[in-house]
Amino acid sequence: MADPDFANARVTIVGLGLMGGSLAAALSINHACGSIVGVARRRSTLATARALRFIDEGTTDLAEGVSAADLVIVCTPVNDIIEKLGALGPLVKPGCVVMDVGSTKSAICAAMETMPEHVQPLGAHPMCGKETSGLTMAEPSLYQDKIFVLTPLPRTSERTVALGHALIAAVGARPLVLDPARHDRLVAIISHLPYLMAVALVNAADSLAGRPGERPSAKDPLAWTMAASGFRDTSRVAGGSIPMMMDILVTNREPVLHSLIEAREQIDRLVDCLEAADFEALEALLQAARHRRTEVFR
Amino acid sequence: MADPDFANARVTIVGLGLMGGSLAAALSINHACGSIVGVARRRSTLATARALRFIDEGTTDLAEGVSAADLVIVCTPVNDIIEKLGALGPLVKPGCVVMDVGSTKSAICAAMETMPEHVQPLGAHPMCGKETSGLTMAEPSLYQDKIFVLTPLPRTSERTVALGHALIAAVGARPLVLDPARHDRLVAIISHLPYLMAVALVNAADSLAGRPGERPSAKDPLAWTMAASGFRDTSRVAGGSIPMMMDILVTNREPVLHSLIEAREQIDRLVDCLEAADFEALEALLQAARHRRTEVFR
Repeated sequence: MADPDFANARVTIVGLGLMGGSLAAALSINHACGSIVGVARRRSTLATARALRFIDEGTTDLAEGVSAADLVIVCTPVNDIIEKLGALGPLVKPGCVVMDVGSTKSAICAAMETMPEHVQPLGAHPMCGKETSGLTMAEPSLYQDKIFVLTPLPRTSERTVALGHALIAAVGARPLVLDPARHDRLVAIISHLPYLMAVALVNAADSLAGRPGERPSAKDPLAWTMAASGFRDTSRVAGGSIPMMMDILVTNREPVLHSLIEAREQIDRLVDCLEAADFEALEALLQAARHRRTEVFR
Repeated sequence: MADPDFANARVTIVGLGLMGGSLAAALSINHACGSIVGVARRRSTLATARALRFIDEGTTDLAEGVSAADLVIVCTPVNDIIEKLGALGPLVKPGCVVMDVGSTKSAICAAMETMPEHVQPLGAHPMCGKETSGLTMAEPSLYQDKIFVLTPLPRTSERTVALGHALIAAVGARPLVLDPARHDRLVAIISHLPYLMAVALVNAADSLAGRPGERPSAKDPLAWTMAASGFRDTSRVAGGSIPMMMDILVTNREPVLHSLIEAREQIDRLVDCLEAADFEALEALLQAARHRRTEVFR
C-alpha cells in the first residue's frame, strides 16, 4: 500500500525535538520517502540529526528548508506552529502539503484556513510523547501502534489526506480522522485533564508535606522519601514541558476547564463519602473507576 | 551484619499474596532465615508456593502454622490483619515476634497493643506493591531498595526491632522507623491521595466520555480509544484491589480526607486560573509542580 506521491516526496521536518526527531528517524529508517530535510534553530541539532542519519539535509533557514518540499511537517509547540503557518505560505511551492503535529487542533486549523490557496493544509496529532523532550530522546518507534489523528480542513484535498495516511502507515501508527473541535474535546479529557490532576496532586503533596530542608513545622518532608511507584506514576506527566503545556492550555481553555470542573465534582463526591463515613457509597465509586480502568487498559 | 536470631529463625508468613509471596521468595532465595512456613486459605496456593521453593512447609491452619514460629509476619489486607492479631496471642510461643505488612499502622498498632504480654509486636509497612495482586505476581526483588517502615510499640523490645532490621536487610529494603500516626499521615499524602485522584480522574473521564456501545449523545466514547500513556500512568493505581483500598480508607479516613481537601483546593486554584484566563498564575502553578516533581524523581 505504498503511496507513490509519498514514496518520492521531499519531506521537510521543521523542529527536530522529540516529535520531529522521532518522525525523521522513523521515515529515514524505513526509507519511506524521497528525502528528509530538517529545519532547526541550532546547527548542533542539525549535526546530531545528520550523524544519526535521521535527515539527509539540514538548515537553520526556514525558507531554504521548505522551498523545494512536497510535504512540510511543523513539529514545534502549538504557538510556534501557528506563527510558522503564518510565514510558510509565500515560502512553499504550489501544491505543497503543510502538516503539523500540534497537541491542539482548533487554533492551528483556524490558522491553516488563512494560508494562501496554493497550500494544501492538513492538521495532525499523534497521540504519543514522553515527559522528556529533545532530539536526544527521539526514537523511530515512538509512533509505533499509536493513534495518529488527522483533522482535514474543508479545503484539504483527498490526495492530501491520502498523503497523510501514507505518512501514518510509514511510521507504524493508526490513523483516526476527526474534526478539530471534537479532537480538542477528546484530548482535554484524556490528556490535558490527567496533566492538571498530576499538577494538583504534586502541589497538594507539596503543601501537605513541605520542602526538604524547611524548618520543622506541621509539614513533614519525609513524605518525599516515602513516595513510591504509585505517586511516581500518578504524577509523571506533571514533569512535562511548561511552554508546551501552556500553549495547549491557552488554545484549549474551554474544553479543559469543562473537564477539570467535572473532575472537581468527582473529588467532591469522594470528599462527601469520607466526611460522612459513607463507605458503601465510597466503595461504589472505587468499583466504577476500577471497572472502567480495567476495561480500557487490559 | 547477619543477625544470629534472624539467621536461625523459624519464620511463618500468613497470607501468600503479592506481598507475602514476594517476602517468602526474597527470604528463601537469600537463605536468610532458618525455615519458612506459609499459611494460606487455599491448598493450591501452598502447592504453588512450595513448587516455587518460596516456602519450606505450608498449612491452611493458622494455629498449626504459627505454633513453633519465632517470627510471624501477617501479609493480608488491613482488616484481616487486625482480625488475625486478635486470634494469634494464644497460638504463638512466648517471645514470638508478630509483624505485619499492612498499609495503615494506627489501627493495627492499636490491635497489637491489646495482644498478650508474651507476644512481641512490631508494626511494619514496606512501601512497594503493584496494582496486580496474588502469588503468581510475586517476585523476590519486590522489596529491593524500597523504603520499609517499622512502627515499634512502646512495649516492643530493642531485640525485636533488631530482628525487624535484619528482615529488612535480608530482602534488600531500606528501613525507616516512624510512629504509627506519622506513618499514616505520610501515606495518606503519597499513597492514598494519588489513589483517590486516579479514581476521580477515571470517573470524570467516564462521565465526560461515556461508555463504548452507548447511544450517541453529547458524550464521546472515542476518548478511550485515544487514551495514551499519560492517561494510562496517571490512572494506573485506580486498577488496584478494592478490598485492600477500602480497608486502607476506613482505617485512615481522617488523614486521607485532610489530604483530599487540600487536593481539591489545588484543583480550585487551577479552575480559577482557567476561568479568569489568568495564564501567568496558571504557569506559576505548573512550574511549581514541575520543579517539585523533577526534584523528587530525578
